[in-house]
Amino acid sequence: MIVVMGKGVTEEQLDHLTGLIKKAGLKVHVSPGTTKTIVGIIGDESKIEKDVLESLDFVEKVMPIQKPYRRASREVHPDNTIVDVKGVKIGGNDVVVIAGPCSVESEEQLYGIGSRLKKMGIKVMRASAYKPRTSPYAFQGLGVKGLRIIQKVGKELGLVTETEVMDTRSVEEVAKHVDMLRVGARNTQNFDLLKEVGKVDKPVILKNGISTTVEEWLFAAEYIMNEGNNNVILCERGIRTFEPMTRNTLNLSVIPILKDVTHLPVIVDPCHAAGKRGPVPALSKASIAVGADGLLIEVHNDPEHALSDQSQQLRPEEFEKLYAQLRGVAKAVGRGLI
Amino acid sequence: MIVVMGKGVTEEQLDHLTGLIKKAGLKVHVSPGTTKTIVGIIGDESKIEKDVLESLDFVEKVMPIQKPYRRASREVHPDNTIVDVKGVKIGGNDVVVIAGPCSVESEEQLYGIGSRLKKMGIKVMRASAYKPRTSPYAFQGLGVKGLRIIQKVGKELGLVTETEVMDTRSVEEVAKHVDMLRVGARNTQNFDLLKEVGKVDKPVILKNGISTTVEEWLFAAEYIMNEGNNNVILCERGIRTFEPMTRNTLNLSVIPILKDVTHLPVIVDPCHAAGKRGPVPALSKASIAVGADGLLIEVHNDPEHALSDQSQQLRPEEFEKLYAQLRGVAKAVGRGLI
Amino acid sequence: MIVVMGKGVTEEQLDHLTGLIKKAGLKVHVSPGTTKTIVGIIGDESKIEKDVLESLDFVEKVMPIQKPYRRASREVHPDNTIVDVKGVKIGGNDVVVIAGPCSVESEEQLYGIGSRLKKMGIKVMRASAYKPRTSPYAFQGLGVKGLRIIQKVGKELGLVTETEVMDTRSVEEVAKHVDMLRVGARNTQNFDLLKEVGKVDKPVILKNGISTTVEEWLFAAEYIMNEGNNNVILCERGIRTFEPMTRNTLNLSVIPILKDVTHLPVIVDPCHAAGKRGPVPALSKASIAVGADGLLIEVHNDPEHALSDQSQQLRPEEFEKLYAQLRGVAKAVGRGLI
Amino acid sequence: MIVVMGKGVTEEQLDHLTGLIKKAGLKVHVSPGTTKTIVGIIGDESKIEKDVLESLDFVEKVMPIQKPYRRASREVHPDNTIVDVKGVKIGGNDVVVIAGPCSVESEEQLYGIGSRLKKMGIKVMRASAYKPRTSPYAFQGLGVKGLRIIQKVGKELGLVTETEVMDTRSVEEVAKHVDMLRVGARNTQNFDLLKEVGKVDKPVILKNGISTTVEEWLFAAEYIMNEGNNNVILCERGIRTFEPMTRNTLNLSVIPILKDVTHLPVIVDPCHAAGKRGPVPALSKASIAVGADGLLIEVHNDPEHALSDQSQQLRPEEFEKLYAQLRGVAKAVGRGLI
Repeated sequence: MIVVMGKGVTEEQLDHLTGLIKKAGLKVHVSPGTTKTIVGIIGDESKIEKDVLESLDFVEKVMPIQKPYRRASREVHPDNTIVDVKGVKIGGNDVVVIAGPCSVESEEQLYGIGSRLKKMGIKVMRASAYKPRTSPYAFQGLGVKGLRIIQKVGKELGLVTETEVMDTRSVEEVAKHVDMLRVGARNTQNFDLLKEVGKVDKPVILKNGISTTVEEWLFAAEYIMNEGNNNVILCERGIRTFEPMTRNTLNLSVIPILKDVTHLPVIVDPCHAAGKRGPVPALSKASIAVGADGLLIEVHNDPEHALSDQSQQLRPEEFEKLYAQLRGVAKAVGRGLI
Repeated sequence: MIVVMGKGVTEEQLDHLTGLIKKAGLKVHVSPGTTKTIVGIIGDESKIEKDVLESLDFVEKVMPIQKPYRRASREVHPDNTIVDVKGVKIGGNDVVVIAGPCSVESEEQLYGIGSRLKKMGIKVMRASAYKPRTSPYAFQGLGVKGLRIIQKVGKELGLVTETEVMDTRSVEEVAKHVDMLRVGARNTQNFDLLKEVGKVDKPVILKNGISTTVEEWLFAAEYIMNEGNNNVILCERGIRTFEPMTRNTLNLSVIPILKDVTHLPVIVDPCHAAGKRGPVPALSKASIAVGADGLLIEVHNDPEHALSDQSQQLRPEEFEKLYAQLRGVAKAVGRGLI
Repeated sequence: MIVVMGKGVTEEQLDHLTGLIKKAGLKVHVSPGTTKTIVGIIGDESKIEKDVLESLDFVEKVMPIQKPYRRASREVHPDNTIVDVKGVKIGGNDVVVIAGPCSVESEEQLYGIGSRLKKMGIKVMRASAYKPRTSPYAFQGLGVKGLRIIQKVGKELGLVTETEVMDTRSVEEVAKHVDMLRVGARNTQNFDLLKEVGKVDKPVILKNGISTTVEEWLFAAEYIMNEGNNNVILCERGIRTFEPMTRNTLNLSVIPILKDVTHLPVIVDPCHAAGKRGPVPALSKASIAVGADGLLIEVHNDPEHALSDQSQQLRPEEFEKLYAQLRGVAKAVGRGLI
Repeated sequence: MIVVMGKGVTEEQLDHLTGLIKKAGLKVHVSPGTTKTIVGIIGDESKIEKDVLESLDFVEKVMPIQKPYRRASREVHPDNTIVDVKGVKIGGNDVVVIAGPCSVESEEQLYGIGSRLKKMGIKVMRASAYKPRTSPYAFQGLGVKGLRIIQKVGKELGLVTETEVMDTRSVEEVAKHVDMLRVGARNTQNFDLLKEVGKVDKPVILKNGISTTVEEWLFAAEYIMNEGNNNVILCERGIRTFEPMTRNTLNLSVIPILKDVTHLPVIVDPCHAAGKRGPVPALSKASIAVGADGLLIEVHNDPEHALSDQSQQLRPEEFEKLYAQLRGVAKAVGRGLI
């Protein structure tokens, strides 16, 4: 950590600062200059809070040198993490396509969609039983009843399942019914929820918040990993920008950045960002080209009568066509596709 | 709601659309044009989901006319809501200054700060026992022990108390110990939490998320009100922008917008946006000038040794000076200050 | 255009509004409702300004139906525009890779880079003689001397050339020396400059501003086209978001949106958004996968000693490797590459 | 400047780096660590480009210590600059209210509005003859004819005048007719224009771009000052955020930040950010409370028939009422108002 002070800093102030640093078990290197005085802190930066140093009125700026997250950092863990969810490997050479309806609506619905996906070769099915909806008047999901349907259909079709979890009180219940948990964009910094899913022995898909920075997102992963669950898969789902023509802006340029700073697998959800099905095929191809390890795509047999996300779910025939094209793009960048 | 379609729309498609609308119990007005066909929907828009209409491939755009939130809307409830928290009225003519430390750290600390605030005339004291921290390695708050301290000190000093609640599982416990609950920026769209605080019989301060729109924020209030708790106070705490020189950008220009569209009281937290104490006095004065009904200000007797938010808490003497100046600004805009 | 008013609107106000509309030569359809009164305007919306209607205090909202830009709109011109710059077709089936140094620094430098590009098969060379630099103390470009070098090297190597133009006073000079003009991100809404390049008989690459909306960007194209120059190529170069880990966020998700609303060719500049060379290959592949018609890539034989953009220019060998990979991605999405 | 490298850095790489720094006439301090190697650069940072250092593949991060702008920086020039425009002092103890129509439309119009403003005590009148409009089909201003009207009316009424300049070619003409120039939000980084107004002997109001950072904005001021014109007044006019309920978000929280880092006067334009007249009074009061040195307010005698900005210009009677209230707020923060 580097601490910058103006030229007016007194001996006494400097002593106070270096005292604080030494008390934290860290070494100090002072460089007095003509316009600024610089103090370098040598040692493990996590031993002292940046905010404590910035609270000193004579300190102008504190600049960290080390990455503040550890378990999620590639600095600490240089090799890619490959998450194995019941034999399906996410983060390896094969791009993994996860597909299924936005919400589980009934056994018939899920079985119908699931069996079509199964036939195409899809291995992991998505479906939400708990729905975070902007409006309290919108469909809120089937809850526990939905979880049971997902479990039953998954078992019957031999599909790996994943679903969203929103409330600390239902983490255990959700983990009992599905193979992989998902934490959505509005809960990226719901720290109590992160701690709870960190205690579960199942992989967790962690979406970015619509305006979380990469650092905040990796800290959210760190919350989960710090409880013992290292099977975290990051999922880019769009960020909020100023553009009114799209619901959110899919941040494909974050993928190479993530690949650089973390060892965790990274997948992309192109549907929620787009908010409509039109751009989903182009965004899916670009996700693979930019280096994503997987895709999370909404597919519904009757989008118009779906109970949520009606306008962004692909029809099975649209998805089937896309799935074939994705294989070509994966091949062009040296990867397989499942 | 207005539905816009391109000129290529067929009779059959139009029939399908109008059928959907009529089935929802709404009336239809079709205006065929040379370049666009427009369908106006007459009646209560909440009976049909915008997303369902947008899912139709021949529909270009759906434009709502009515405000989608109801209980929080000034259209439905033209008069200002005044929230009474143990005799202190928020949303009336007096601007209410809520002050206190970021976190409760010990009984001595809270009593020390609280008694100074009490002497100045402050009526409501803030202090957090649960802390949403970006890093899992940062101080996470005293929890239940902290709640007990807040309750004890509040009682001894005769101060109204408020504190943050983060987890659905602790809502009941928190409500038992303090007079007013606070939902922080990371939980603005934690819908399960909103539902829980909606069941409590105590006022709730609801902060905006760092990038929630006004509509989303009012929908969050709606979640609380929909459960029966109408004592919601909105608190602007800054938004995320592109500017690196400040932690967040305090969105003072949202205050007149909120005053226009909702009847709920609106207060401002200038500390979290600024991230340092320097700009807090100027931002506090501006908050009152722009029309806020109150302020939420962090005051700590020893910020450097605080366990959180070290750099943004005012020292008691700084706060006392500011408090006097605020009265002048309040007077200039025709309001009192408590 | 749809005009929305509250229920309190008087007969007199309504008459005033409909009078304004009729005076503009448009027809009116009034739908009085229980909570809102809606007025539909029938005819060419460009005949009346939205702002004039919104200036009426009894009007709540004005919602346009028609796209406000015309020449750039796919509604008016359904077929793709293919821009032909000295035989190189941009916007057709082949993805066009434009490459070259950020700045022209000397004849030797440009000839050296240009001849390597020529050998690889590149047809269009970029190089800037005028540099918009954030700091007045940074290298500002070689100016007219640079233009002459570009012209000479382009001629000798048989490469099509393009360069940036920043000042209305130098448009003529620039157009004399190069085959294609480029308007940069800081000048997207420099309307006088747009008008000048609109009078020139050479294609224009028009970048988005770091926070221009799609509508504003297309209006900027409209300024150029309105002067008679229809050979406009849009170039996505990144937008400003809240993320500090990247200079700008390359907005790849805008490509399918643009393809939907405009007939103009769209290319991508991945270097300026990334701000460093690391992510450029991944972003380039994704640009093609998402549907771009071309790429604008910075290549320098000695980036460390370049006079601008040192950290984001690819070395020739890096570029050559990438160029080969891009062909594979183009093929996977059914396109050629030149 | 601090240069950070990973632990893998070789002796050779380090030598290369320190060689570069020494060649620029700067001193070096190397701190090898267990996880990072840090190189501190001692001396005038402007002698070496950050980008050059970042272009080295073994460099992770380069962190400047000194403010990169100089003439605009308070570090170099601690005292407030007071700009004197024909006797009216901007940046002193009195808050200066500049008012007038968006556009000059005719002599009658400007004389009518100007004489009302004069009577109220207003000293500086605004009016634009060149209009940067998003659409090429909107009113583009009266041009030179408008300049003549502004000059004539200003002289007759004894008002100081200011107007916008957009094109390098018209800077001289504009400067001949008015007392103060204004550079608008779309031209904040039109560097050629900044250089031209820097050569003029009249004060310049420089607005922020809708998404320029404080650093970029001050660099824009630096462009003007670097040409010899130190009479720069910064004008906050709103930034682009994600909120659709307001045209732009007036960034009042930037005022205390600017006051901290620069000595230049800062004024606020509340009308363009709001986009409608409703919030203008509240935002104007808040601007003064937060520390602005002046206001730029649009006033029109007949907004509905104005040729631009119809919905955001105040009527004279609205402005007169506001002007009286502003005096009270100014007094509450210890300032006068003219």
